[in-house]
Amino acid sequence: MSKIQWSETENKIAQQAFQTAYQRETSTLIANVRDRSATITELQDLWNLHDLLSTKRYEIDGKYSYDPDSAVFDLANFIKEGWLSLEDLRGLNSEVLSKISALLRMQY
Amino acid sequence: MSKIQWSETENKIAQQAFQTAYQRETSTLIANVRDRSATITELQDLWNLHDLLSTKRYEIDGKYSYDPDSAVFDLANFIKEGWLSLEDLRGLNSEVLSKISALLRMQY
Repeated sequence: MSKIQWSETENKIAQQAFQTAYQRETSTLIANVRDRSATITELQDLWNLHDLLSTKRYEIDGKYSYDPDSAVFDLANFIKEGWLSLEDLRGLNSEVLSKISALLRMQY
Repeated sequence: MSKIQWSETENKIAQQAFQTAYQRETSTLIANVRDRSATITELQDLWNLHDLLSTKRYEIDGKYSYDPDSAVFDLANFIKEGWLSLEDLRGLNSEVLSKISALLRMQY
């Protein structure tokens, strides 16, 4: 895949999309932890929550650092994970959008 | 400190006290996590909760394994931490209780 040249506006749109995905993933995680904590009665449930937080912290750390060179993959991944829709990428050029759509059709 | 010979009855009382302390510490921890989780709105609060769980899991792991050779120290420690009172040790012999009392007066 050839390197994409992002215009300043496109960079801003992509960065905003990263921010949107980040907000959605983290607020969903916080809501899940709050719901789950409210039902905890056993110590093992608490350690399961700890394991979940360890995994999520590791996953989220660095995931939302914006890098234009990997942004197309990252954006496609955020869509696959349900944190973004193509609607959130409105304003990106058609080359970028078609690359993202191609990635979404691939099993990677 | 010389080794203490525990009678079968005393072993049972001491083990029951371990169980009581374990129940109190873990149910307090669960209640704290539930209360704390209910107020979480920021990701950093979530990671602070993760840090707390990491520390507590490490602390609690093995802490309540009963070993007659260290039980006097453990019981004194549970009292210091507020999980037991001397009342919970009723039935242990006076030698054990006075050693525990001595430990409670020491800054260790």
